[in-house]
Amino acid sequence: MTKPIGGAGLRGQSAGETALCTVGKSGSGLTYRGYDVAELAEKVTFEEVAYLLLKGELPNEAQLIAYRTKLKSMRGLPQALKTVLEQIPADAHPMDVMRTGCSMLGNLETEADFAEQGEKTDRLLAAFPSIICYWYRYSHDGVRIHTETEDEQIGAHFLHLLHDKAPSELHAKVMDVSLILYAEHEFNASTFTARVCASTLSDLHSCVTGAIGSLRGPLHGGANEAAMELIQDMKDEADAVATLKQKLANKDKIMGFGHAIYRESDPRNVVIKGWSEKLAAEYGDDRLYKVSVACETLMWEEKKLFCNADFFHASTYHYMGIPTKLFTPIFVCSRLTGWAAHVFEQRANNRIIRPSADYTGPEPRTVTALQER
Amino acid sequence: MTKPIGGAGLRGQSAGETALCTVGKSGSGLTYRGYDVAELAEKVTFEEVAYLLLKGELPNEAQLIAYRTKLKSMRGLPQALKTVLEQIPADAHPMDVMRTGCSMLGNLETEADFAEQGEKTDRLLAAFPSIICYWYRYSHDGVRIHTETEDEQIGAHFLHLLHDKAPSELHAKVMDVSLILYAEHEFNASTFTARVCASTLSDLHSCVTGAIGSLRGPLHGGANEAAMELIQDMKDEADAVATLKQKLANKDKIMGFGHAIYRESDPRNVVIKGWSEKLAAEYGDDRLYKVSVACETLMWEEKKLFCNADFFHASTYHYMGIPTKLFTPIFVCSRLTGWAAHVFEQRANNRIIRPSADYTGPEPRTVTALQER
Repeated sequence: MTKPIGGAGLRGQSAGETALCTVGKSGSGLTYRGYDVAELAEKVTFEEVAYLLLKGELPNEAQLIAYRTKLKSMRGLPQALKTVLEQIPADAHPMDVMRTGCSMLGNLETEADFAEQGEKTDRLLAAFPSIICYWYRYSHDGVRIHTETEDEQIGAHFLHLLHDKAPSELHAKVMDVSLILYAEHEFNASTFTARVCASTLSDLHSCVTGAIGSLRGPLHGGANEAAMELIQDMKDEADAVATLKQKLANKDKIMGFGHAIYRESDPRNVVIKGWSEKLAAEYGDDRLYKVSVACETLMWEEKKLFCNADFFHASTYHYMGIPTKLFTPIFVCSRLTGWAAHVFEQRANNRIIRPSADYTGPEPRTVTALQER
Repeated sequence: MTKPIGGAGLRGQSAGETALCTVGKSGSGLTYRGYDVAELAEKVTFEEVAYLLLKGELPNEAQLIAYRTKLKSMRGLPQALKTVLEQIPADAHPMDVMRTGCSMLGNLETEADFAEQGEKTDRLLAAFPSIICYWYRYSHDGVRIHTETEDEQIGAHFLHLLHDKAPSELHAKVMDVSLILYAEHEFNASTFTARVCASTLSDLHSCVTGAIGSLRGPLHGGANEAAMELIQDMKDEADAVATLKQKLANKDKIMGFGHAIYRESDPRNVVIKGWSEKLAAEYGDDRLYKVSVACETLMWEEKKLFCNADFFHASTYHYMGIPTKLFTPIFVCSRLTGWAAHVFEQRANNRIIRPSADYTGPEPRTVTALQER
């Protein structure tokens, strides 16, 4: 028996196997290859998480140093890619820039054989911050930046390129944690896009380009930007409460709360919320943090909705001077690790993903001649 | 009860509803909005099929003339896109070029609102032959072509740009039929990619860019190119039989035969086979047609496998002077109509496509300190 599925989005239906991640197993948990995400965010760095997801285990110290050194050496962009990025106007959607940058790199450094999948992924991991920052700084500031820095880590490197100076220790740490939190999330829509593409045995750049396109959608990757738009004009906690109550009364969609899978809480929220509080103290103006907390309290009281990973990311990124429109591209720089690990997994046990559909269209009919239509 | 699904690719599972297409309802049929594909290929033109898929009904004469005129006016490429295409080397994969061209156009002519979906689709339909031919002629022949021709139809326009002269009536007709045959095919992997992307409410260019990436895979769009590689060196029918027997003995994968959905035959084969025969007669050398027929006979006798749409497309395209590496990009120029129609349909009754997965990874574990790993 087939259950009715019109528009139901395969919710709760298994579309395959994965060893990478559990989401919401007890209603709230998130693990990467068995490790709790909160513990990873506390004890390791993003490069270790990338290594874990892509190669199967956490690296030892020698492996980690070698991996960081390798990634560091891969940050430069070929001239043809720079020329392409220079053709993209300042008012373009930054996710369109990421999608195009990734696709273009696929022309210049094509994955000729699946044996190259690890190398090509490392290259994208190193190059993505360069791609988005090269375009941003060229189109907005009119400068052609040098995309290679001495920063050991990807998060610090990103902030360095964006602000043209090495970040503080605190900011480097927070970026690192943020990248860990966004790295992997099972069969979400962008990852599933990558797996469907991989199932045709297409190349890595196609899989990642497609995933970027899906993450671009406001129902998926855009929530932290939407959260920023929500909170940026709230003057204080009372204003936050009044604004949200009005929105709830209007039945407006409020982004950054609730989740398709989690039922009780999003385990990433408590982590990023803590860092947002620290950044607020350092920044010297805790308005955004306080209105965010007020929103969290109200949404729970009124709707029993909890903050997801995106909500406190808004204030967090803002305190580090990141323009709102670059929030989702940062998500790309992180989630690439999950996407690629899923591509590897799909390739290792592949059958083309080709579901069926229920037909709701016209009965068989014959063509009427053009002149008689 | 959940059935085992490891690597099973959602085969036979419904992932949604569609009014666009039935595939293999009686084991062999293919209908677009109720019309049999063979009747469409006989009686209408590709622009009518595009109109049918995108707008719901076949156009009357006035509507068709207006639609052709509109598409004809949209063939030019912006300078920034030409500059991007000029950065892509001659040895790039032509599907990477299509993917990048589509993605780049999304930066320059972004779909700002879903109300623009019809306009943006028409633009891509008009621009795709220009994109692939501009890159091909620039990178291979060193010329910057003018991408606007007076040809009324897309198939003729493509051949005109490729060969720098208007095609014969026969070639224009065959290209038109070919575009009809490839236009739509229900929830195949590239179309499903487009729908997953659309389900996040992402933009049209992202959906189509992702679909191109999936069609690139050798299990999906590459079969007509693989068929060409198979037949091109066959000297005659006896050689064809010997070659195939050897391949079958070696258990080599032979592309262009059988189908994931069809059980008895592919209804598109008889149509394109007929045109291949006519082209062979006109070409004055029927070797490729004859070896193809010998392959068809042998594969049925030995394996009960029938030719799918791709097999006779190889000889067909070759007789029209189309380089093998452009076969799959032509598929893109056609299937765009189906992809876009599915995007419209997904948007009209949307829920984000977010399946679950069966977890096969490590049990919960704790992080070992870096120095102790």
